Amino acid sequence: MAKIDPLSGFPEFLPAGRVVERGVIDALASTFELHGFANIETRVVEPLDRLAKGGEIDKEIYLLNRLSADGPDDSASGRGALGMHFDLTVPLARYVVENAGHLTFPFRRYQIQPAWRGERPQEGRFRQFTQADVDIIGVDHLPFHHDVEVVTVMVEALARLPLPPLTLCFNNRKLIQGYLEGIGVEDIPSTLKMLDKLDKVDRSEVVRLLVEQVGLDERTAGRALELATISSADESFVDQVRALGVRSELLDTGLEELRAVISASRSVTTENVRVVADLRIARGLDYYTGTVVEIYMQGFEHLKAVGGGGRYDALATDGKTTYPGVGISFGVSRSVVPLVARGLLSSTRPVPSAVLVALVSEEERQASVDLAHQLRARGIACEVAPAPTPFGKQIRFADRRSIPFVAFPSVGGGAPQVKDIRSGVQVDLDPGSWVPPEGDLRPTIVASFEGLSLES
Amino acid sequence: MAKIDPLSGFPEFLPAGRVVERGVIDALASTFELHGFANIETRVVEPLDRLAKGGEIDKEIYLLNRLSADGPDDSASGRGALGMHFDLTVPLARYVVENAGHLTFPFRRYQIQPAWRGERPQEGRFRQFTQADVDIIGVDHLPFHHDVEVVTVMVEALARLPLPPLTLCFNNRKLIQGYLEGIGVEDIPSTLKMLDKLDKVDRSEVVRLLVEQVGLDERTAGRALELATISSADESFVDQVRALGVRSELLDTGLEELRAVISASRSVTTENVRVVADLRIARGLDYYTGTVVEIYMQGFEHLKAVGGGGRYDALATDGKTTYPGVGISFGVSRSVVPLVARGLLSSTRPVPSAVLVALVSEEERQASVDLAHQLRARGIACEVAPAPTPFGKQIRFADRRSIPFVAFPSVGGGAPQVKDIRSGVQVDLDPGSWVPPEGDLRPTIVASFEGLSLES
Repeated sequence: MAKIDPLSGFPEFLPAGRVVERGVIDALASTFELHGFANIETRVVEPLDRLAKGGEIDKEIYLLNRLSADGPDDSASGRGALGMHFDLTVPLARYVVENAGHLTFPFRRYQIQPAWRGERPQEGRFRQFTQADVDIIGVDHLPFHHDVEVVTVMVEALARLPLPPLTLCFNNRKLIQGYLEGIGVEDIPSTLKMLDKLDKVDRSEVVRLLVEQVGLDERTAGRALELATISSADESFVDQVRALGVRSELLDTGLEELRAVISASRSVTTENVRVVADLRIARGLDYYTGTVVEIYMQGFEHLKAVGGGGRYDALATDGKTTYPGVGISFGVSRSVVPLVARGLLSSTRPVPSAVLVALVSEEERQASVDLAHQLRARGIACEVAPAPTPFGKQIRFADRRSIPFVAFPSVGGGAPQVKDIRSGVQVDLDPGSWVPPEGDLRPTIVASFEGLSLES
Repeated sequence: MAKIDPLSGFPEFLPAGRVVERGVIDALASTFELHGFANIETRVVEPLDRLAKGGEIDKEIYLLNRLSADGPDDSASGRGALGMHFDLTVPLARYVVENAGHLTFPFRRYQIQPAWRGERPQEGRFRQFTQADVDIIGVDHLPFHHDVEVVTVMVEALARLPLPPLTLCFNNRKLIQGYLEGIGVEDIPSTLKMLDKLDKVDRSEVVRLLVEQVGLDERTAGRALELATISSADESFVDQVRALGVRSELLDTGLEELRAVISASRSVTTENVRVVADLRIARGLDYYTGTVVEIYMQGFEHLKAVGGGGRYDALATDGKTTYPGVGISFGVSRSVVPLVARGLLSSTRPVPSAVLVALVSEEERQASVDLAHQLRARGIACEVAPAPTPFGKQIRFADRRSIPFVAFPSVGGGAPQVKDIRSGVQVDLDPGSWVPPEGDLRPTIVASFEGLSLES
């Protein structure tokens, strides 16, 4: 095995980076569970005909083939072919239909797993990446208050993460559709597609596209754009939209839904997580039917959204029953990998051990093993020094791993001792009662965003 | 989307089963961490030339191909081909060599991830399955005491799992090799291969195979078999081997190593986890060089080993440096999936919620949301009832999910109340201090092995 280079697009963490990733995952999971969302994991593969729907994403699907196809029941290609899931929504839809008889609805689930896309690797875009999805799925009908619920859960979860400031940008497809219908637009999907370009090209170019490619007259194109430029961090967007003078029942419903989402999520936002109504947000995917949201990370706008989601009135159907849903996905890899790679997120140490138990001699190893055992019995992670080198060398061994404490077993009848190797303070150690300070018990995440330009 | 059948070999849990799997994974992880093992996760793919070594396993490797091969840097076939890892040892070896400059040695890591094998699915044998591996990797030399360490860590970890009784069967390759050399066997690998058949065919058949296929004389074949029939739950195997009258330095080393492993692991065993020296255990893989172990689950011997591992003096090398290691792998899916499928392991409830907060009316939803918020602030998982149906119906909603408590928000100035729906007892609820009993706070694992024949 010669020198090995990393595989582009398949990020892996060193142990310290993995501490960060797990910290983020654990914080998300524990908030989701506090809100009663059950965890599931789905297999990594789905039948190809469930994944490939003729869209752009098809090109990025990874197929699974056996190296040798002489086995039983092989899934080489065609109808039985298996592909790796490229998101967690397709597997959820399949899981819900497959297990509907065993689930209780509304089904509240979260799922934190990798997904795979064979796209060109770049910062924040990977071929294997971990996502955290939280969704509520109903049967036939899912009341709107679940939109508010999912949104507030995700805001609360994100507020606990050690990330640069995040902004959730909300819009509502009923609002957009109602408005566009109200000003006389017929081809809503094409119009949305053009409005979606507002983050890449300027307004006059979008007007030109709306006129030339969608066939709107100049005035209608201008009015369509007027909606897309409205944004507010509070409910004032409602009056701004009303001032445009368009009347439509669907617009009213959308406005009220977006107002409710903004109002409820504002009540749980923190300094680090902002919410705005941003009427430019459309989200390309045509299965959204109400609330839509995209999440941006300050200083990392070039990654585009680090999360998103919304309401879809038909997540899945088995022909008889339709399963509507609402959910938000957060890109764990997309946000965390760049932050760790740039050294903006790290951990206090790469190992769980709070204590290195020193070794007096190989013959006296059992004394060190016993002392470690006593500490572990009270939840203190520790390891025994690998070799009975001079204590100075054992302390350097701990220091290289940022293990804060070195414990010395009893020698010749004296009490065991423990040294804080940062301060050098060494005291007697009662193995039945000593505990390290709370902050030293486990490795924790260190965030240093000082060097980061946080202007958006 | 019509009716969907499960995909054979790719097991998935319903939420209640996932509670069991997570409980097992969390218990393993927390024990590994108490012993100072760092967690890593590796990407799911490795270059094919690192996976396929010409062995039996090659046929089971899954290759990854892009559905459309017109993308950049495609990994279609040949040198750049990617395969899914079939264990966690090959990725570990690659990770260690790739990151050696950034790791501190001995490198103590654990890894709990799926692996993939395209084998014929049957109980306990899956195409996607989760393993928990714990290993210690050294540079050039790894002292034997790490064998003892890894073994005791795994015994401690297994002792915390809610599984039927487990037995760890230990042997030592130096012991076997020294003995076989001592009785004049030259072709050790072929002899081991025949001795490995002892769990399938009877002794006389193995003697016949040793004579006819390996070329041993009848007496030597008989003596080889004598070793393989020794087993003991304590250190008495040492005297039994000595009584066979074979002398070899390698045998002595092997005996002493196995004695040390048995002695140390016996000190941490429990009623539920036994250890034995079983000199029949050889483990087919030729990379083992000292300690070998296989783990069996009582009542599920037909699954064969649910875990195993040992010492390998050359896990990896980059040409200049060799990385020896010792580790044990436990089959999470192999043990847990059959137990959940048979209803022997389940959970107290399929959802995290300890409390359902009832809803008086849709207009008063905020009162329920606020009450839930107060409970969550103290770590109590809860959810708000989806609809303001009569309270009896809301209580049945909780009951169907086995949520033990229903809380009622304050109505007309009275105190909020909480009902234990199992006992029917309803009391005033102080949202700032009320807590459910510890056992109701989280879903927990329910094991019922009464129906299981536990004779081995």
